[in-house]
Amino acid sequence: MQDAILKLQEYWAGVGCMVMQPLNAEVGAGTANPSTALRVLGPEPWSVAYVEPSVRPDDSRYGLNPNRLQTHHQFQVILKPEPGNPQELYLKSLEAIGVDLQAHDVRFVEDNWASPALGAWGLGWEVWLDGMEITQFTYFQQLGGINLSPIPVEITYGLERILMALQGVDHFRDIEYSSGVSYGEIFGQSEYEMSRYYLDDADIETSRQLFDAYALEARRLVENRLPVPAYSFALKCSHAFNVLDARGAVSTTERTKAFALMRNLVRDCARLWVEIRDELDHPLGESPVPHAAAHADAVPVDPETAPADVLFEIGLEELPSSEVSAIAESVRHLLEGALAATRLGFEDLRVDSTPRRVVARLTAVPAIESELEHVARGPRWTAAFDADGAPTNALNGFLRKNEATVDEIVEVDVNGVRHVAVKRTLPGRSVTEVLSSVFEQVVRGLRADKNIRWSDPELSYARPIRWLLALWGSVEIAFTVSTVTSAHSTRVLRTSEPPVRDVGSLEEFDRILREENIILDREERRALIVTAAERLAASVGGVIDVDGDSGLIDEITDLVEAPGPILGSFSAEYLQVPSSVLTTVMKKHQRYLPIWVDGALSNSFIIVANGPFDEAVVRGGNENVLRARFEDAKFFWRADLEKTPAEFRLMLDKLLVEDRLGSFLDRSRRIEALATEFAELAELAAEDRAVVREAGAVAKFDLASQLVIEFSGLAGTMAKEYALRAGLDEATSTAIEEMERPRFSGAVLPETTPGAVLSLADRFDLLTGLTAVGISSTGSSDPFGIRRIAGGIIGVLRSRPDLSISIGTGIARAASGLSLQGLEVTDSVRAAVVDVLEKRYSQQLVSEGHDVAIVRAALPLIDSPSAADHAIETIETWLGSENFTAEFEALLRVVNITPADIVGEIDGGGGTEDVAFAEHVRVFDSALTENDGIDVFLTELRRLAPHIDRFFNDVRVLDDDPAVRQTRLGLLGVIAGRARALAEWAELKPLLP
Amino acid sequence: MQDAILKLQEYWAGVGCMVMQPLNAEVGAGTANPSTALRVLGPEPWSVAYVEPSVRPDDSRYGLNPNRLQTHHQFQVILKPEPGNPQELYLKSLEAIGVDLQAHDVRFVEDNWASPALGAWGLGWEVWLDGMEITQFTYFQQLGGINLSPIPVEITYGLERILMALQGVDHFRDIEYSSGVSYGEIFGQSEYEMSRYYLDDADIETSRQLFDAYALEARRLVENRLPVPAYSFALKCSHAFNVLDARGAVSTTERTKAFALMRNLVRDCARLWVEIRDELDHPLGESPVPHAAAHADAVPVDPETAPADVLFEIGLEELPSSEVSAIAESVRHLLEGALAATRLGFEDLRVDSTPRRVVARLTAVPAIESELEHVARGPRWTAAFDADGAPTNALNGFLRKNEATVDEIVEVDVNGVRHVAVKRTLPGRSVTEVLSSVFEQVVRGLRADKNIRWSDPELSYARPIRWLLALWGSVEIAFTVSTVTSAHSTRVLRTSEPPVRDVGSLEEFDRILREENIILDREERRALIVTAAERLAASVGGVIDVDGDSGLIDEITDLVEAPGPILGSFSAEYLQVPSSVLTTVMKKHQRYLPIWVDGALSNSFIIVANGPFDEAVVRGGNENVLRARFEDAKFFWRADLEKTPAEFRLMLDKLLVEDRLGSFLDRSRRIEALATEFAELAELAAEDRAVVREAGAVAKFDLASQLVIEFSGLAGTMAKEYALRAGLDEATSTAIEEMERPRFSGAVLPETTPGAVLSLADRFDLLTGLTAVGISSTGSSDPFGIRRIAGGIIGVLRSRPDLSISIGTGIARAASGLSLQGLEVTDSVRAAVVDVLEKRYSQQLVSEGHDVAIVRAALPLIDSPSAADHAIETIETWLGSENFTAEFEALLRVVNITPADIVGEIDGGGGTEDVAFAEHVRVFDSALTENDGIDVFLTELRRLAPHIDRFFNDVRVLDDDPAVRQTRLGLLGVIAGRARALAEWAELKPLLP
Repeated sequence: MQDAILKLQEYWAGVGCMVMQPLNAEVGAGTANPSTALRVLGPEPWSVAYVEPSVRPDDSRYGLNPNRLQTHHQFQVILKPEPGNPQELYLKSLEAIGVDLQAHDVRFVEDNWASPALGAWGLGWEVWLDGMEITQFTYFQQLGGINLSPIPVEITYGLERILMALQGVDHFRDIEYSSGVSYGEIFGQSEYEMSRYYLDDADIETSRQLFDAYALEARRLVENRLPVPAYSFALKCSHAFNVLDARGAVSTTERTKAFALMRNLVRDCARLWVEIRDELDHPLGESPVPHAAAHADAVPVDPETAPADVLFEIGLEELPSSEVSAIAESVRHLLEGALAATRLGFEDLRVDSTPRRVVARLTAVPAIESELEHVARGPRWTAAFDADGAPTNALNGFLRKNEATVDEIVEVDVNGVRHVAVKRTLPGRSVTEVLSSVFEQVVRGLRADKNIRWSDPELSYARPIRWLLALWGSVEIAFTVSTVTSAHSTRVLRTSEPPVRDVGSLEEFDRILREENIILDREERRALIVTAAERLAASVGGVIDVDGDSGLIDEITDLVEAPGPILGSFSAEYLQVPSSVLTTVMKKHQRYLPIWVDGALSNSFIIVANGPFDEAVVRGGNENVLRARFEDAKFFWRADLEKTPAEFRLMLDKLLVEDRLGSFLDRSRRIEALATEFAELAELAAEDRAVVREAGAVAKFDLASQLVIEFSGLAGTMAKEYALRAGLDEATSTAIEEMERPRFSGAVLPETTPGAVLSLADRFDLLTGLTAVGISSTGSSDPFGIRRIAGGIIGVLRSRPDLSISIGTGIARAASGLSLQGLEVTDSVRAAVVDVLEKRYSQQLVSEGHDVAIVRAALPLIDSPSAADHAIETIETWLGSENFTAEFEALLRVVNITPADIVGEIDGGGGTEDVAFAEHVRVFDSALTENDGIDVFLTELRRLAPHIDRFFNDVRVLDDDPAVRQTRLGLLGVIAGRARALAEWAELKPLLP
Repeated sequence: MQDAILKLQEYWAGVGCMVMQPLNAEVGAGTANPSTALRVLGPEPWSVAYVEPSVRPDDSRYGLNPNRLQTHHQFQVILKPEPGNPQELYLKSLEAIGVDLQAHDVRFVEDNWASPALGAWGLGWEVWLDGMEITQFTYFQQLGGINLSPIPVEITYGLERILMALQGVDHFRDIEYSSGVSYGEIFGQSEYEMSRYYLDDADIETSRQLFDAYALEARRLVENRLPVPAYSFALKCSHAFNVLDARGAVSTTERTKAFALMRNLVRDCARLWVEIRDELDHPLGESPVPHAAAHADAVPVDPETAPADVLFEIGLEELPSSEVSAIAESVRHLLEGALAATRLGFEDLRVDSTPRRVVARLTAVPAIESELEHVARGPRWTAAFDADGAPTNALNGFLRKNEATVDEIVEVDVNGVRHVAVKRTLPGRSVTEVLSSVFEQVVRGLRADKNIRWSDPELSYARPIRWLLALWGSVEIAFTVSTVTSAHSTRVLRTSEPPVRDVGSLEEFDRILREENIILDREERRALIVTAAERLAASVGGVIDVDGDSGLIDEITDLVEAPGPILGSFSAEYLQVPSSVLTTVMKKHQRYLPIWVDGALSNSFIIVANGPFDEAVVRGGNENVLRARFEDAKFFWRADLEKTPAEFRLMLDKLLVEDRLGSFLDRSRRIEALATEFAELAELAAEDRAVVREAGAVAKFDLASQLVIEFSGLAGTMAKEYALRAGLDEATSTAIEEMERPRFSGAVLPETTPGAVLSLADRFDLLTGLTAVGISSTGSSDPFGIRRIAGGIIGVLRSRPDLSISIGTGIARAASGLSLQGLEVTDSVRAAVVDVLEKRYSQQLVSEGHDVAIVRAALPLIDSPSAADHAIETIETWLGSENFTAEFEALLRVVNITPADIVGEIDGGGGTEDVAFAEHVRVFDSALTENDGIDVFLTELRRLAPHIDRFFNDVRVLDDDPAVRQTRLGLLGVIAGRARALAEWAELKPLLP
């Protein structure tokens, strides 16, 4: 390991980095070292390399976890400005420490980095070495909220991981640190003791006191304009926070406050640093701003040349998988748009993409644009010549403007009026001229979901654009976009020799890609992966889940250019761990395809590597990574099995939800009580009630399990596994699992009734609680997932019309549960919760395609979303019905004319018309009950509508005689009353044809 | 610089060190890093190398001082166990970073290291590169109060210094850190800002709070048996202390307390670490204990060979200069002793020494010890044979025991009685056998003032013993001492090629040393240095001060084996700085001989280098070092001249003496008042009083000057310089300087009366004050220098009998000055002060050679030491006088018989004898006055003594008649009263012949 460090230091020193020392303060990462955190700011160049022992109290594991340490070693490199080829420099550094790039599968996999505490973010990758994440590679965009310029590249090596991979060991303690001495021998005791300190022994009161003292000192030093010591105290502050956090002493609100405090400190330090470096006039000079290259002259082409096909390639650093399809779409769109503005024809356009390139092809493109005939219209003919037939001033002016003579005048007809005109034929530009401008527009027009800047002063995209290639037949289309100039070459796989290949023609381009096994066509790539994976799976008697894992296969397809599926396997002993855990690890963390044999998870899996590699090496490496991850999982699994759900539940008292909401144990108990009440209320069957009671008694217990702490996405899933193994019955175990559903918007809902009840109890408690302590979602910020929680309640309620739990009841019961813990839930809080739910529900409906008018109309039914759903469906059917307009207009007349405070009454008085109509209203009214929905109402309305129309035609409702008027409004009031209880009918007005 | 770091890392990794990272906490030195501080403990091997950015808040200089930084970079190496050749390994590391050892003067100069805060110490060297201290090299002996075993070597490079020397730059900011980037460009801002923090901006209250919090946490973690985090908090504690200290917020008592606290913490961490490593069963294994080598067989010699000379060399790592003569003495003494116990003759013994070797020569040593005739005495002759002349049992037993037969019996006479006896001639052992045992004894017997251990399990001496050579003529005397075995080779200068030379004979040895210019004879070496230096001085028209700098020349002589004096010079501009400052720097810090031209300091000086070197390089290097140091001094000097003494004095309020004794400003004011009182009391002439007043008004002001803060030994000296330049008159300026005298026990006393008065005021105030707050000296601990202060008072009082200031008065006046500041000085405190002074005085007298009995006798006069001195002198004269015995016995009779409470009275009554004696007593009494000293008393006693004798012979003093008894005792009481006031006569009894 020390060798690797020495070699990295030498290598980076050799390419012009300063080698610095780690910071003499506890930092969580090399980024926090002022050599990065402050130096990336401002215009000064700064390229450094240093080791950073990185302390993360939260990762303390007493030295027992093979991959996790409270202190691990980072090797940090900052290249500022990014030099244009940072990936290539990085790959050479791997070679320097003995990584054979020809043998291994080294990949740049999207990983975007943000540090809220530093107010920093950047986009980039995690670098995989045979599936092991060994490096974080980031184009740094912002720090302390300040945009960086020039843009630095940050390369952070995880030394322990690299060394474990290189040395083929399974536990950090077995890394050979130096000849004959292992990592564990050197650092083992410290790992244990510091873990003890961070997890068990640190004094919480003292740590809080330190946090406050550091924060104050940092603040004071900012005010004294000393960014260096101020920042050092900000770092101490951050470490003190991390200690508190590891001790479980930070509630969510405290965390929010602490982060705000630290973010502000860092921001102020950063601003101050920039100011002071300005005042010092930038002792290290200013980074030169790269100049945009001069525009290349278009290669002249003989206009007589026959049409030819066009190749246009944009080369990039590895795109996020989600952008691979998107860029092809963008380029197609931009190309079509730009070409439409020219007179250059083509037959066909095809755009393909891989993570590193997007390639457009236009077929049959002529050498030259078509000509354009342009007619310049002049004055009316009558105004062009005077009585003598001589040109008037108007005509002369027009001729001068168009540089034309009288001979050139032609006559045009404009709406039947003769005008003078001049015709001009505009010649077409050459294909090279047209396309160089088109391609430049396309490149400049690229935008992704998240865009970064790099050293180019003008471009911004998902990842840096590094090369351009464009050919018309074998003619180069030379063009320049900012600092990037096209060349007649392409870059192939990074590990190929040579990595850059000259391209003279489209055929040559295709041949080169074939040689390199680079498959441009995404469908072809996907098919190849699926076919090969199926074949490999079959070789072990299994199958892959092509449908179930379709998203994963898409992702894999967009992670490789030259896919190389490999069969890997792991020790069958890990199959004792639930397959949900194993597949989570394989798919989510490693992008492996699991193999199933007879419906059961097998111990084989598919790795899809990229480019040429040594299959044995890559298989071995990936298997090691998986083994380590499984080892972790198994370790947690076994440790967790030592405890019962009840024991876990008691451990929840150490996990704080939010200080005013208490611990997760408090929450678990509130959920238990609330779910039990809901079960009564919804009159569940006795056995379901028993299930609710038992499941509630251990609600959320698995949050205290190590596996869930590690893989938070398995909350609920693990609860079921552990519950079953602890002897709880199937129904109860399932209910515990289902309590966590839906996991996200649109995810699977609880299937069982007890599950649904528990899910509601969980969410009503949390939503009401959070609102009561003043937490809400604002704009794009929703740290507590308020919207998700609200969406969950709506989802469950909509799916379970049989559960008679209304929103109002849910909130009221949750409120009384919270008040028992001393948290007052005021009426305005309840109203706010209703508001959140209403908004969420409306959004769901609108996004499902319901007309916003109908949604608004149904809102009075919000207290029972399932009822509202039913109403909406009914209204929509009604809208499509033949008599809708008549019925709706009749109803609207009734509703409009009847004051809201009129009490509906059939008093039997009045004239003949009144009496007849009253009879109809009586029939209508008696056909409806309180509980009837909008469907029954509309059926009755259908019958009544003609009578309403007649009534309005026959009588003047607002008769001058007050008694008559009262009688008539009373009759209409009966209808209006029924109507108003069901919907906001007026909202439907826009839907009238 | 980064290159040097990389090369050092590589070099030490190459020789088996682990390369580690700096600590992520602020530490003052690489030693504090647990990679040293904890790992040196216990039996586990541990060899590491790492950089340590070392933070010393006190060294903050805003980046302005060319050599001093709040953070400098150390390169730390620990070799545990020390490998036997650490110096050689170290020198190769210098070569690795480009130091040409052939050209430079690299020297190991004694420098012993102790860190009270770490409870650690070791002996070793500072390594000089052309006079620049570049490395600390230590055999680590103890840490946390625990003896280390095995012994590690600690090598600490000062990187900035080495790089400044190698790159030939004058200011740290100009060091090239990496290609094209300077140290200042990288670290300049941080130096400035952190200096601001440490010196000006750190919040004192917060720092105290942090100190306390860290200390508590460390203590708690010790109790939780977690040495690693406990120690990390101890380090934080230490840094917080350093911050407070740099802010000037630590009083002496606080410092003492804080150090005790930190020392205890480190001790407890160290103990705990050792315990826990034991419990872990030493994960890194246990260092092998070197075995003592097998004893070599003595080379057999032909006993007939003619006598030959013997050479015996002990080779060591560089001895402290103070040990160079001592070792020669020791070896001579040990050799003589050991040889005396053998029968090996020799003509002459000569022992020479240099820093690296001690060489003994014995001339004319025979091949074999002389024979010894041994007589075994048996029974008396008469008991040996029975009546028949046959051997008795007694004789047979004797013969059996002596393996003799009857024929061998001889007769011996013992006190006139005939005994049987057997004579045996013991043969002599061969010279090689005898000397190998003698030499082993000598080597084992070596002891110095301070002894260390190294990897040898049995030996201990000032520095490691590395080689042994012994020859008898050309015959090797093979012997082994513990792990060191003699060889027929010697080591010459480290930089010579080869560094080890075979030695076949004494002549060859001498020839080799001559070739190497190694001069064994210390006198010759000294003479060569003096002669060459004088010649060089003469070449610039100057001289060196051979007498004044005699101690320095001795030291230089003991710092080199092959002296090479070089003439150096510095810019004359520095001569504007007082020569006391310049010579202090040259002599004390650099061991250069100043050159004087016409009594004034010149800008030339003499460097004495060692071994062969490139004169230009060494001169240049030394000149650079001196320039840097002078630059410092000049900087301080100029800055100091900006302020007046009065301004400085006000700044003393920031320097705390001890919290209850107030600041130095308080002290300065007390001294002023006290000196003024003393001047009145001693009835000084008006002009002297004025001087005392004026000097007192700025007493101690220079303690606030930068130069004195830097060179504390110049306190007083600088006061005079600054006072003169501020326009104070010569007398006042001198008095201010003399106030600081005597600087140490036996040093020069004040010469002027005002100086003496101020010196007394200073010391009475301090001694009384310290005693009042409970500080005293105990055993070997005297952190406040109580003994030195007391010795100063005694010294001044003894030298100035004309000043009528008694101890009692001094204490009383000082006490009232202190009480004005609210510090109560009780009677018991005063008594304690008297006691301290009395002890100090007695010790002075005894060490001056006065008989302890006389000293005791004179103690009643202690209140005026000058009077006591006079009394002692008188008594000593008296002791040598003819009539001493008679006079003393007479006096003793009087004193013994007279009760202490008898009031002397001559009442004229009694018998004839009484009346006659009364007349003599009257004469005696009237000849003496209160103020007469012991000399007048003894003169009168001489006259009276015969009368006393007669009186005792004639009368019975204790007559039965009470009146008669009363009369006689009254007469004797007159004499006894006079006597008792002057001395404790009874103490002199042991001196009676």
